[in-house]
Amino acid sequence: MLNFEFKNPTKIIFGKDQIGKLADEIPANAKILLLYGGGSIKKNGVYEQVQNALKNFEVLEFGGIPANPEYEVLMEALKVIKAENITFLLAVGGGSVIDGTKFLAAAARYKGEDPWDILKNAVRTTDAMPFGTVLTLPATGSEMNSSSVITRKSTQEKLGMGGTGLFPVFSILDPQVVQSVPQRQLANGITDAFMHVLEQYMTYPIGAALQDRFAESILQTLVEVAPKIMANPADYEAAANFMWCCTMALNGLIQKGVPGDWAVHQMGHELTAQYGIDHARTLAIIAPSHYRYNFESKREKLAQYGKRVWGINEGDTDAIAKAAIYKTEEFFHSLGIDTKLSDYTPDYNGTAQKISERFAERGWRGLGEHKRLSPDDVEKIVAMSY
Amino acid sequence: MLNFEFKNPTKIIFGKDQIGKLADEIPANAKILLLYGGGSIKKNGVYEQVQNALKNFEVLEFGGIPANPEYEVLMEALKVIKAENITFLLAVGGGSVIDGTKFLAAAARYKGEDPWDILKNAVRTTDAMPFGTVLTLPATGSEMNSSSVITRKSTQEKLGMGGTGLFPVFSILDPQVVQSVPQRQLANGITDAFMHVLEQYMTYPIGAALQDRFAESILQTLVEVAPKIMANPADYEAAANFMWCCTMALNGLIQKGVPGDWAVHQMGHELTAQYGIDHARTLAIIAPSHYRYNFESKREKLAQYGKRVWGINEGDTDAIAKAAIYKTEEFFHSLGIDTKLSDYTPDYNGTAQKISERFAERGWRGLGEHKRLSPDDVEKIVAMSY
Repeated sequence: MLNFEFKNPTKIIFGKDQIGKLADEIPANAKILLLYGGGSIKKNGVYEQVQNALKNFEVLEFGGIPANPEYEVLMEALKVIKAENITFLLAVGGGSVIDGTKFLAAAARYKGEDPWDILKNAVRTTDAMPFGTVLTLPATGSEMNSSSVITRKSTQEKLGMGGTGLFPVFSILDPQVVQSVPQRQLANGITDAFMHVLEQYMTYPIGAALQDRFAESILQTLVEVAPKIMANPADYEAAANFMWCCTMALNGLIQKGVPGDWAVHQMGHELTAQYGIDHARTLAIIAPSHYRYNFESKREKLAQYGKRVWGINEGDTDAIAKAAIYKTEEFFHSLGIDTKLSDYTPDYNGTAQKISERFAERGWRGLGEHKRLSPDDVEKIVAMSY
Repeated sequence: MLNFEFKNPTKIIFGKDQIGKLADEIPANAKILLLYGGGSIKKNGVYEQVQNALKNFEVLEFGGIPANPEYEVLMEALKVIKAENITFLLAVGGGSVIDGTKFLAAAARYKGEDPWDILKNAVRTTDAMPFGTVLTLPATGSEMNSSSVITRKSTQEKLGMGGTGLFPVFSILDPQVVQSVPQRQLANGITDAFMHVLEQYMTYPIGAALQDRFAESILQTLVEVAPKIMANPADYEAAANFMWCCTMALNGLIQKGVPGDWAVHQMGHELTAQYGIDHARTLAIIAPSHYRYNFESKREKLAQYGKRVWGINEGDTDAIAKAAIYKTEEFFHSLGIDTKLSDYTPDYNGTAQKISERFAERGWRGLGEHKRLSPDDVEKIVAMSY
């Protein structure tokens, strides 16, 4: 097991009809900017619940934060925060709204000239405007972690940021919101959480027995609840387990003491930036090729995953490891998620080379758990995903 | 799944040679009281590491906090805290030293007349003197939770306390400390953590699939590492997994959204108060009888535990559930832990009645996950444990 530090101060309020507790978690004299996305919260009743809970606060609103939260849009929100002397941010939405809010929390207190530098120069944020979240779409885990991914449309860039200042003060998770999430987003959420776990797990054995089992627990539970959620998102028990899995998949716990990979995300971000493919789907496109390409170094963990998560017991280590990759693809397919780039765009030729060049341009530091994958490796992996 | 709230702000610093990081976690102007137990830290090198790390601080010491931290001893430490204007407490030890330090952190800021009232009246502590811990004995999980159990010798009482103010600011966990822990304490630690999980798990199905699997993950890992630890406590990998299991067993996570039992602890505390039997061993004495006595209401979870933790697949639900109890006893025996009261004292007659009476005297609120167990039930369970 590797040495690690772990601290996660976010307060989780989880369960049925908990949104009303909002008011107790925000400082009494706060001036709040309520941030949301495309307006689904006005259809599913969440907006009304939030407004009711906040009736004794001064609340301004900023809606329209898009999926893959865009820098350009967020900079408009930043103007409101500054002009109106906002003191507390409340994200009501999914990962995109929460990630956007994290950027704003950091930008509101950033001392430098251009807030884009936080992303470009990977500045760690230790001081930020306090913010809470009401989660409406289980998927990214952003509700209980301190990282964020922001997209800049004009330059087709998608970059990450983070730091101890970016944990939400609180997050309210009411699994009843799942029933109004469209099928496409449910499939994305399940895939996203599944891949978050795999990025932290599918590396090499490091003797972290408990972390491995926790990761497998999340994977097993997602496999168990996925068909129930897809068939009936109003199934509260399935929704609650799905929601808690998404949070636990990326709140730091299963990452502690183990190596991380994250190359699938890094390559996937490029597919979103270039083709606008849903984040989760880019992961499903890249992961199988990534695991096949790096089969030698991931063989042991692939086989452990095959045995423990998929119950594959026939064959030698190689056979089980290979079967585990197929099972993963089948799982994504069962959710209606395609796993080849050509399923999403006819215009895929040259993508591998282009992505590889972008990585090289940004200054190459190596990808994957060994930091050994080169731009040439990236090109081959992406090409395998066509 | 039940509704829940979860917040655990303790910073964990885990791994080889991490004690030196102590100085970075304590406010620069702090006046520290270093608290420890019987002096084992002076033999295993931990005391020296702590002193080296704190060489730029003003540090006073209070040693001699006994197992089952005693109120009378702690009140002496409280005098030092007040007389010397201590501002930060540092517990260096196992669960007893940490629990004692939590009492002191609360008592130092308690506004009432008699600090014993915190325990007697179950006062929740929200404001306490800040404290950190350096863990030298994995077992109780006290290093990452906000509860504490204190013993008052003069009245043979052992009572709990807690509150959001009682999370350690930080805890440093170096698995290398395990190599100097005596066999008896290692067996106690494994048993203690195992029983902590069972108290939160062995109830009835509530549809919390992820929490169940996390609990099973800890149990499976303890079963896996126990023989390695007992054979060679210098096995770093086994020690690291053991240590992290103990912390995760009682940091709140697996308790969230599920019913808890804790009757085994409540009965066990009485055996410690009366006979001075090691805490963990009292749990091993009571648990098998408790599970047999409450077999009907615990059958489903007993069988799930039998299948998933012990791999028992033969027989119907009843048979698997019963076999799971035997497996649990065998596991304790494999650690050298006896599971009958008569193994510890020849003087056990009348114990069941006495314990039952003490519960009744204190005002009966019902024991177990259904809060339905009466003093009469307690008498029968303890008598079954003779």
